Amino acid sequence: MNIRLYNAHILTMEKGRNIFRGEVWIKDEKIVYVPDEEELAHEMKGEGLPELHWDKEIDCEGNLLMPGFKNAHTHSAMTLMRSLADDMPLDKWLNEKIFPAEAKLTPEDIYQFVKLAILEYLSSGITSIFDMYLVPEATAMACQEMGMRCVLVSGLNDFTSSIEQTEEEFVKWNQKKSLISYKLGCHAEYTCSRELLIKLSGLAHKYRAPVYMHMSETSKEVRDCVNKYGMTPAVFMDSLGMFDFGGGAYHCVHFTNEDMDVFRRRRLHVITNPGSNAKLASGVAPIKDFLDKKIPVALGTDGAASNNCLDMFREMFLVAGLSNLREMDAASVDAMEILRMATVNGAKAMGLSKADVLAKGKLADIIMIDLQQPNMQPIHNMDKNIVYSGSKSNIKMTIINGKILYKNGEYFVGEKPSDIYKTCEMIARRIFEARE
Amino acid sequence: MNIRLYNAHILTMEKGRNIFRGEVWIKDEKIVYVPDEEELAHEMKGEGLPELHWDKEIDCEGNLLMPGFKNAHTHSAMTLMRSLADDMPLDKWLNEKIFPAEAKLTPEDIYQFVKLAILEYLSSGITSIFDMYLVPEATAMACQEMGMRCVLVSGLNDFTSSIEQTEEEFVKWNQKKSLISYKLGCHAEYTCSRELLIKLSGLAHKYRAPVYMHMSETSKEVRDCVNKYGMTPAVFMDSLGMFDFGGGAYHCVHFTNEDMDVFRRRRLHVITNPGSNAKLASGVAPIKDFLDKKIPVALGTDGAASNNCLDMFREMFLVAGLSNLREMDAASVDAMEILRMATVNGAKAMGLSKADVLAKGKLADIIMIDLQQPNMQPIHNMDKNIVYSGSKSNIKMTIINGKILYKNGEYFVGEKPSDIYKTCEMIARRIFEARE
Repeated sequence: MNIRLYNAHILTMEKGRNIFRGEVWIKDEKIVYVPDEEELAHEMKGEGLPELHWDKEIDCEGNLLMPGFKNAHTHSAMTLMRSLADDMPLDKWLNEKIFPAEAKLTPEDIYQFVKLAILEYLSSGITSIFDMYLVPEATAMACQEMGMRCVLVSGLNDFTSSIEQTEEEFVKWNQKKSLISYKLGCHAEYTCSRELLIKLSGLAHKYRAPVYMHMSETSKEVRDCVNKYGMTPAVFMDSLGMFDFGGGAYHCVHFTNEDMDVFRRRRLHVITNPGSNAKLASGVAPIKDFLDKKIPVALGTDGAASNNCLDMFREMFLVAGLSNLREMDAASVDAMEILRMATVNGAKAMGLSKADVLAKGKLADIIMIDLQQPNMQPIHNMDKNIVYSGSKSNIKMTIINGKILYKNGEYFVGEKPSDIYKTCEMIARRIFEARE
Repeated sequence: MNIRLYNAHILTMEKGRNIFRGEVWIKDEKIVYVPDEEELAHEMKGEGLPELHWDKEIDCEGNLLMPGFKNAHTHSAMTLMRSLADDMPLDKWLNEKIFPAEAKLTPEDIYQFVKLAILEYLSSGITSIFDMYLVPEATAMACQEMGMRCVLVSGLNDFTSSIEQTEEEFVKWNQKKSLISYKLGCHAEYTCSRELLIKLSGLAHKYRAPVYMHMSETSKEVRDCVNKYGMTPAVFMDSLGMFDFGGGAYHCVHFTNEDMDVFRRRRLHVITNPGSNAKLASGVAPIKDFLDKKIPVALGTDGAASNNCLDMFREMFLVAGLSNLREMDAASVDAMEILRMATVNGAKAMGLSKADVLAKGKLADIIMIDLQQPNMQPIHNMDKNIVYSGSKSNIKMTIINGKILYKNGEYFVGEKPSDIYKTCEMIARRIFEARE
C-alpha cells in the first residue's frame, strides 16, 4: 500500500530539526520519503525516487505529521478495572481490589480488554506500547489482530509466572520481525524473591538482554527494600548484575543520587508515569535531575486501573506541571524535551530504533495533529501548543506500520468499537458480580 | 424552540441524586421537564405537562446529559497569548511578555480572541464563564453574538481602569436579563492602591454586592502584602469591608488558617485553578482544607496564556491528582465532589442560581457526554470515568440557553471557525511583529 501525505507541517523529531512544510510518502510498512535538510533547501521533492503508484493520497490541509506516541509503560488489559476502585492507597488498592479481580481473569478476558485499550491508544495517537501483564500471549494476539505495535515485557513474580515461562516467551516473540517483540522483566523487587531475581539476571546474561521492572514507585517500597537488603531497589538490582546489558524501570519516583548513578552508569531508561503517580499519591519524580544527569526519560500512562485513562497528552502536560511544582520553577522542563520523551525516548527505551523519528527507511508509525481546532490557535509555537494545550481530540489520524487505523474519529481495525464495548461490559459483569 | 432529549443517562447534579435514565425537555431557554424522584419512581413521564410540539427530537443513544461546566475563572481574550511565552516565572511573564502585548490590544482584537475562546469553551462543555479582562464590553459582545453565558467581573486596577468605569459597567450589564451579567471585582491587592480598594468597597456597600479578585496566587504576593499592610490579602481585604456582601477569590493557593476563617465567616467562594498554578509553579491549593472547613470550591481554567488551554477535564483531573499529592492520600477528594466544583459550585460562585442543576424551571445549559468512546468503557462508575478518564473528546453536544451551539465536532455559532482562526492569526501577526 503506497500512501502519499501532502500539504503537511512535519515534525520529524530528529534532533535540532524545526517544523517544516512538506510531504511524507509511505510504501507498505515504511517511510520512503520525507525531505531531509538538503532536499528541503533545494526543493528536490523526491527527485531520484522511484515513481510510485498511489493507493491513497491524503491532503493534510496544513495539519501536523509527527511520529506516533510511544506509551512506554502500560498494562493494557487493566481497562477492565477503570474507575472501579479509585481513591485508595496503592497497597490497599492492589490487595483488596486488583488482585482478587485478576484471579478471575481468563486469557480471553485479557484479549478483549486489550482490544478496548487499543481503541483508546489509537484515539490518543499512541502507536507503540510497552506492555506488562498476565498472559502476554493474549495481549500479543489482540495487538496483532488490530495492528498495534507492542513490546511485551515479562511481569515475572513469585505468584503468577515462572522463569521458564519467561524464557519461552522471550524466545518465541523475538524470533521474527513482526508488530510484537518481547523484553525481559519482572514485576518489581517486592513481588520477587532474591532467588527468582538471580535467575532473571542469569537470563539477561544468557541472552545479553536488557531488563525492565517497576521501581521506587512509593517511599514505602524503597524503605522496605532497604530494610530487607540494606540497599535501595536500583542498587540492589544492579548488585545482582541485572542491568549488565541495560534496561530501565517504570515510575522511579523516589530515587537517591546513588540510584541515579546506577542509571547513568548502566545507561538505563527512566520511564515516568506522572498521571498514575499523582492520582495514587505516590509522589513526583525528579525529572529535572534525570535530565541534568543525562538519564534518558520516556513516558507512559500506566494502566487504566490507576490512571484512569491512556492519554499521552495528559501525561505530557503533567510532566511539565508536576516538575514545575517540584522545582518551584515555571521553566523546569522544555516542551520539546517532553515531546522527545513521548516519542524518541520511548522508542529507545523499548528497543524500537526503527520507529523513533520520521525519516526515510523508518517504520511508518505516524500521527496527524489537527491544528484546525481552537485549542491549537493561534500558532505561536506548535510544539508548545501540543504539550501544554493539546488534547486527544487533536488526533486526526493514527498510522501504524503503514496502515491507517484511526481517522477523523473512525476506527479501521476490523471490528466495530460498539461490539468490543459490549463484550467487555459482559465480562466486567461476570467478574464483578456484585455490580448492578 | 422545543427540544426533546430522549434515551439518555441523566446526572442532574442535585444533591444526593444518582444517575438515572430518562428524558429532558427544553422550551426556549428553559428546562421544562426532567423527571424528579417521584416521577421517576412512578414512571409518570411528563404527565400533566402541556403537550409540546417538538422542533427537534434527539436520540441521546444512552449517553449522559448533565449541567454544562462553569469555568469560574478565565481571561478569554488571552487566547491571543497561548504558548507565546511559556516556561517563565509569573512576575517575569507578566511584565516582559503579557503587559507589553496587552498595551497594543484594541477592543476589536479582544472581541476576536474571545470568539476563539468561545469555540474552545463549547468543545470542552463549558456553558458559562466568569471573565475578567480589559474592555469587558468587547467580551460581552462576542458572548452575546455567539450565545455564550458570561458573568463579567471588573478587573479594576491602578493602571487600566477606574472606579467610575466599574460602576457604569456594573449598572449597565445588570439591568436586564440576558446572557451577560456583571460582578464587582478588582485585579488583585498588588495592582490596586489602598485608596482604590476603599472605593471598591464603597461600591460593594452601595449596591450590597459581592466582590471578586485574584488572591494569594504566589507566596511572594502574600509576603509582599504582609510587609506592606501587616496582613495577608484575605485579611486585609476583609478589614476594608470588601466582603461584607460576599464574593470570592481566584487561585487561593497560599492560604493561612486566618484566611480560611475569613472565607468561612463571609461565606466566600474559593475558585481554584490547578492547571495554571502547576504550570506557573505557583503551588498547590489546600483543597482538602477548604472542603473540611465547608468553604465552597469552584473551578476555573484561568487564561490560555498561563494554562494553556481552556479545558475543564484537565482541571478536574488536576484537582484530584494535585490534592492527592499534597495530602499524600489517594482519596483526598471524591470524584463527585469535583464534578460539583465544575458545575453547581461554579454557578453559585458566579451568581447563576438558575444554571446550576438539571431541573424544571432551570436554564437549559446542558452538555452531552459521549459514553461510546473507549476512555469511558467499561462503565463501573460514570462519575469517576468523567473526572479521572474523561477528555474534551467526550463532549458530544453543548447547549446554552436552550440553543445547540456544538454537536459532534460542529459549531453552530453563526460563523465558521476557520474564519475566526484566520482573523486571530492576522491580529497576532500585527501585535507580535517580530514573529515570523
